[in-house]
Amino acid sequence: MTHTEINRQTTAPHSPNRKAAIIGGGVIGGGWVARFLLNGWDVSVYDPDPDAERKIGLVLANARRSLPALYDVSLPPEGSLQFCSSLADTVAGATWIQESAPEQLAIKHRILGEIQQFAPDDAIIGSSTSGFKPSELQENATKPGQIVVAHPFNPVYLLPLIEIVASDKSDAAFVRNACDVLRDIGLKPLLIGKEIDAHIADRLLEAVWREGLWLVNDGIATTEEIDDAIRFGFGLRWAQMGLFETYRIAGGEAGMSHFIAQFGPALKWPWTKLMNVPDLTPELIAKIADQSDAQSGHLSIRELERLRDDNLVGMMRALKKSGSGAGGTINDHEQALRQSIASNGASATAQLPQTVSRPVPQSWTDYNGHMNEAHYLEAFAQASDTFMALIGADDAYIAAGKSFFTAESHLRHIAEAKAGQRISITSQVLSAAGKKMQLFHCMYGPDNDLIATCETLLIHVDLTTRRACPPEDAVAGKLAEFATSHASLPIPDGAGRHVGQKPA
Amino acid sequence: MTHTEINRQTTAPHSPNRKAAIIGGGVIGGGWVARFLLNGWDVSVYDPDPDAERKIGLVLANARRSLPALYDVSLPPEGSLQFCSSLADTVAGATWIQESAPEQLAIKHRILGEIQQFAPDDAIIGSSTSGFKPSELQENATKPGQIVVAHPFNPVYLLPLIEIVASDKSDAAFVRNACDVLRDIGLKPLLIGKEIDAHIADRLLEAVWREGLWLVNDGIATTEEIDDAIRFGFGLRWAQMGLFETYRIAGGEAGMSHFIAQFGPALKWPWTKLMNVPDLTPELIAKIADQSDAQSGHLSIRELERLRDDNLVGMMRALKKSGSGAGGTINDHEQALRQSIASNGASATAQLPQTVSRPVPQSWTDYNGHMNEAHYLEAFAQASDTFMALIGADDAYIAAGKSFFTAESHLRHIAEAKAGQRISITSQVLSAAGKKMQLFHCMYGPDNDLIATCETLLIHVDLTTRRACPPEDAVAGKLAEFATSHASLPIPDGAGRHVGQKPA
Repeated sequence: MTHTEINRQTTAPHSPNRKAAIIGGGVIGGGWVARFLLNGWDVSVYDPDPDAERKIGLVLANARRSLPALYDVSLPPEGSLQFCSSLADTVAGATWIQESAPEQLAIKHRILGEIQQFAPDDAIIGSSTSGFKPSELQENATKPGQIVVAHPFNPVYLLPLIEIVASDKSDAAFVRNACDVLRDIGLKPLLIGKEIDAHIADRLLEAVWREGLWLVNDGIATTEEIDDAIRFGFGLRWAQMGLFETYRIAGGEAGMSHFIAQFGPALKWPWTKLMNVPDLTPELIAKIADQSDAQSGHLSIRELERLRDDNLVGMMRALKKSGSGAGGTINDHEQALRQSIASNGASATAQLPQTVSRPVPQSWTDYNGHMNEAHYLEAFAQASDTFMALIGADDAYIAAGKSFFTAESHLRHIAEAKAGQRISITSQVLSAAGKKMQLFHCMYGPDNDLIATCETLLIHVDLTTRRACPPEDAVAGKLAEFATSHASLPIPDGAGRHVGQKPA
Repeated sequence: MTHTEINRQTTAPHSPNRKAAIIGGGVIGGGWVARFLLNGWDVSVYDPDPDAERKIGLVLANARRSLPALYDVSLPPEGSLQFCSSLADTVAGATWIQESAPEQLAIKHRILGEIQQFAPDDAIIGSSTSGFKPSELQENATKPGQIVVAHPFNPVYLLPLIEIVASDKSDAAFVRNACDVLRDIGLKPLLIGKEIDAHIADRLLEAVWREGLWLVNDGIATTEEIDDAIRFGFGLRWAQMGLFETYRIAGGEAGMSHFIAQFGPALKWPWTKLMNVPDLTPELIAKIADQSDAQSGHLSIRELERLRDDNLVGMMRALKKSGSGAGGTINDHEQALRQSIASNGASATAQLPQTVSRPVPQSWTDYNGHMNEAHYLEAFAQASDTFMALIGADDAYIAAGKSFFTAESHLRHIAEAKAGQRISITSQVLSAAGKKMQLFHCMYGPDNDLIATCETLLIHVDLTTRRACPPEDAVAGKLAEFATSHASLPIPDGAGRHVGQKPA
């Protein structure tokens, strides 16, 4: 089994040749490049800017250190990246073509026209436009139904949201297919019911932006104070639930109608100044820029990007626990990857099964600058979980009321692992009898160097009584197969040792 | 050393008697009760609603399962909670008095007047008002300077933001003192420069709320789609950085002025319909309520609250890593608690130092319904960190370039720990010689029952060369003291054993 096969399998129905063409390689286009590439697609790029390759390289570097860290399984190997000098070459054979040109309708019309000259008939042409309606983009197009708004959010390689907007010229099956492709690369397509200027999210953002400009303009608050008013309060609520569900809770058991009845009257008050737009005078622009310098000028944009990405990864990993919002999107994508691995799963051979292959998230490192010991055990526990799944003690088995509990573990740290490094674990059965299963996990670094081992004893339990009991026959049988085939292997170095014991 | 002493020490300058009086015990008042109580303050409550005690009990139950989980050290023991039948009794001797009455100016004037009749002259009277200016609240007050807006955000026991608004009748030293008190209970006071209706955050919220109402009213999107447009995208950005810092990054190296020049023109477009407020007709209210039911009706408000709180704890714990936003507030509070512990620190006696005392966060549990093995090791690693600090290998020592690395660890799981349970760890020195330090940690559950042990070998290293070296003399000396005094203790059960070895 290779990861390429995994990816082909999951994306095959929607994208047999897995080629994406990215037209325009700025921050947004570069984000699309990274999102497709890191999900195993081949990507070709067209951008007349001579600096495009360098800029995309910077976005890719950010994506490579953060996107894989969201998942507890490996993403497929990267596809190939190609910079093209003609639009015809770029879009030839592409399944998905994404336009991220400047936000001017005439420019977009010209580029979309050129794309349609050369693009395959069944390719999806997505536009990253934040403002234009699909019917505007489709004006004068040879095949208007091929064009759909696919509006992403920065950083495109991390944030799952994509607003999908179609017009009445769009075919429903085509739009569904577009959503499937996006889900296959880990995104959350949000299909908007009616087309309007600026779709949904940017209308909400603009409302806040206007109010923020007034607050700065009138000297009520600085940019930093406005940011603090968001991030120490409602920003944390919105990251998981948004606006209405948060207010539903505030209404208590009496519900949403009750909340509106309470909160509604406030809307009549003169709380906002949104009847108008503050003039963006040089003075106001300078005021905002100065305040922003005072707030964030001690960090370069590069540093801010990495801080933002590390925080996004950390928060989204936290949301995986409940499956709320972006956490659910990541869990779904991870589950699809996992199922492909399981369907190509290891059988009991004398060769040790690889039970973990993953990068080290930045959030797994500590003040000593390396992976923290608790996360070594987290990775080893993932190896035990994978091995359990291999012998049939999988999610369904646990849901039915049986599982293995870890009784004891002995970890040995042999070398350091740093953030972003790829680690892999193989697992060997030392013994298996009755309720007991003793495993020996070896963790390897990027150069296949041994960096840690974990000897662990697991006890099979009934989750209702919380007491030890023998596994079901099917599980016991598969475990015995592994135990028999691994019995021919030498006892690994470090097994059967206590803490501080000198090597034999 | 007791935790009561810790709390007295950190809060002493601002609140010698540590009594808070809470006037109005709804969702917001109840949140204030929980925030003060769980930070060791005595709290008295006045609310004529006969159901107030039950309602506050529900808020407290939520707070007890989530607030302590934010920290990796113990909060002080809870203060005492008292429900009073007279306002005079409630405010007598209070340091902080918080008014959370209904949002009607006449009611607030009446209650503030009564409070000032009985309150100590030097008490701070905070108002939770989301709309009124402090100068409005102060109208006709006997001591206007005693009243300050202290506007919190739901859930008050978790979200750190408090908007502090003063008027020109307020004394700067008094306002500073108010901010200090709030910081002492783990909050983030945001002092607003000028008073305006609805302060800052609610103006931003109202702008979005209005736009959201239009989107629902016009059938562009449902409540769920609007929430998804927030939580899968910009909500995640705002939880850590807010609006302006996020856009600063979007502007790239060219900076904020460049971003505004790019984005500014969009403001001239007809993207919003904010010139007006949609009429809250029965039809619109029913539409929103129905959509909200379809979105979230499968969960009770109680379940939604717990989901929200677990997500908040998870995301804020993730932000502790970088110290961004709420993560920084928690780190600061934790540091204050830690310093108090250190200044009362253990000396080398035959009695074992307690190196961890904390609750089990919900996010530490796994599919088996108990604390996950990796988090057992996280707690044991915290015990090693505390012990390192006790012998002088603290943050400053590490910053100067030396540290201890864990070489190996042996964990034994004896009983299960569940979410919310308090765990504590004692640490014993088994041996200490040259570069090596061998510790034995015992973890106890809420009834002082042994639930796990960890034998661990640490090696002292030079962080520059990443090689082993002997500790500095001062550290070696303190370690030797512990080793000598612990030498008189029996070798603990389970030490020196390998995985699967039967007890002697």
